[in-house]
Amino acid sequence: MTGSALAASYFAPVNMVGVIGRDFPRAERDLLASRRINLEGLEEVDGRTFRWRGRYHEDMNMRDTLDLQLNVFGEFSPRLPESYRDSELVFLANIQPGLQKGVLGQLRAVRLVGADTMDHWIRGDREVLVDLLSDVDILSINDSEAQLLSGERNIVVAARKILDMGPKTLLVKRGEYGALQFSADDVFAVPAFPLEMVVDPTGAGDCFAGGMFGSLAESGTFDGRALRRAIVYGSVVASFCVEDFGPRRLRSVTRDDVERRYRQFMALTDFHS
Amino acid sequence: MTGSALAASYFAPVNMVGVIGRDFPRAERDLLASRRINLEGLEEVDGRTFRWRGRYHEDMNMRDTLDLQLNVFGEFSPRLPESYRDSELVFLANIQPGLQKGVLGQLRAVRLVGADTMDHWIRGDREVLVDLLSDVDILSINDSEAQLLSGERNIVVAARKILDMGPKTLLVKRGEYGALQFSADDVFAVPAFPLEMVVDPTGAGDCFAGGMFGSLAESGTFDGRALRRAIVYGSVVASFCVEDFGPRRLRSVTRDDVERRYRQFMALTDFHS
Repeated sequence: MTGSALAASYFAPVNMVGVIGRDFPRAERDLLASRRINLEGLEEVDGRTFRWRGRYHEDMNMRDTLDLQLNVFGEFSPRLPESYRDSELVFLANIQPGLQKGVLGQLRAVRLVGADTMDHWIRGDREVLVDLLSDVDILSINDSEAQLLSGERNIVVAARKILDMGPKTLLVKRGEYGALQFSADDVFAVPAFPLEMVVDPTGAGDCFAGGMFGSLAESGTFDGRALRRAIVYGSVVASFCVEDFGPRRLRSVTRDDVERRYRQFMALTDFHS
Repeated sequence: MTGSALAASYFAPVNMVGVIGRDFPRAERDLLASRRINLEGLEEVDGRTFRWRGRYHEDMNMRDTLDLQLNVFGEFSPRLPESYRDSELVFLANIQPGLQKGVLGQLRAVRLVGADTMDHWIRGDREVLVDLLSDVDILSINDSEAQLLSGERNIVVAARKILDMGPKTLLVKRGEYGALQFSADDVFAVPAFPLEMVVDPTGAGDCFAGGMFGSLAESGTFDGRALRRAIVYGSVVASFCVEDFGPRRLRSVTRDDVERRYRQFMALTDFHS
């Protein structure tokens, strides 16, 4: 959650919602506060912060969960501060889909809804998730989640089935292989930025979504062109994220760095001239 | 070998070199002859044609070899007909690297050398292969071969090591994830064309290389722009190949179809405007 807020804050002000325990590092909170991130909706409660520990395979697109502690997250029911309720864009990060739906219900003027989810909810809370999807404009998940949700191995077929469930746009994240965006009449493919050193892919998907929604908020229009640009910005910020552990790399990355890598992305993929 | 000759023939005349047994299907020979493919260098000898049988995993980037019969290929030593020896572009398809080197030695006016190889030669004939690489302009291999050849898991690091071995350009094929092209001062990434139906990925790499070299032959220049365009043409022809078994799909695909899908590729990847 820290990653997606930081990622979005390169492009637009962010109203962050979440819950942390007493163990949440002061330095990370200070980092958030030093950017355009409103922390009024960040509850601090007794207990420990959510924690995931895993091991990545040599192929970093694969990982095993070693330890998952919901901690304070287990009892969390997000309540938006009054000052958040007129937000026009909302990104519903990966929590129980009923809670995601509850956040939506607290917004008065929403123009664009993004959502993430994971295998746990696809398997265990399918009905609530599918109900949520009819309110979602952009569903942002990874390829194995898309396969699980649709029951289809082929990603094009999977995407069509998922679009039939409601979201106007599906973003499929494929780690080091980039991302695919599907909508009723459009497909967009973008590679990942080739990096010599990947330190930690954890949270790259959150950075991707944060960068994408930040860029959409900045542009204020959500047409195909703006969406493609936003997806590339998402890829750019995600490519920085994996260069260090957690959100650490974003401490030093500036908007100028983001723009520089965006231009490198253009050079990387251009054969149109 | 049939696939790469057919793929290249969409763009330029082809002088084909190879060996087939008495069992080679008449219809396939007729198909080759019906295109701009010179068959003078295609030897027909007693015995059976090379044969590979395997099983693809659900993830079609992975496969197991069930049966490999070199047959007439085991004794093959390519000799170029006199009429081939002034060819300016040569693509050395995957055979023993000493034989690839032997083909090079028979050419008088070569301007661009492409080569493919496989794990078998990387493991068993490394020295001869590395010797060949100093004469190669474009090495076209898949990602696991690049990792094996370089001893590096990270593809950017692997690419730099391989470029140090001699080839000016490295093309890394990644199946359904597209391709990456590396040279000393340039990186180009292209996704694969998203397909709803992949029938048989066998030989897609050959079609890719054939399309790429055909396009380079047609353009006559080998600068970065021509190379990028050629790589996209390679991806286009490969995307047709996998839609049916063997080279069957290319029977009905026309140059117009190729151009149409090239334009779809531009639409698929464009965020530059």
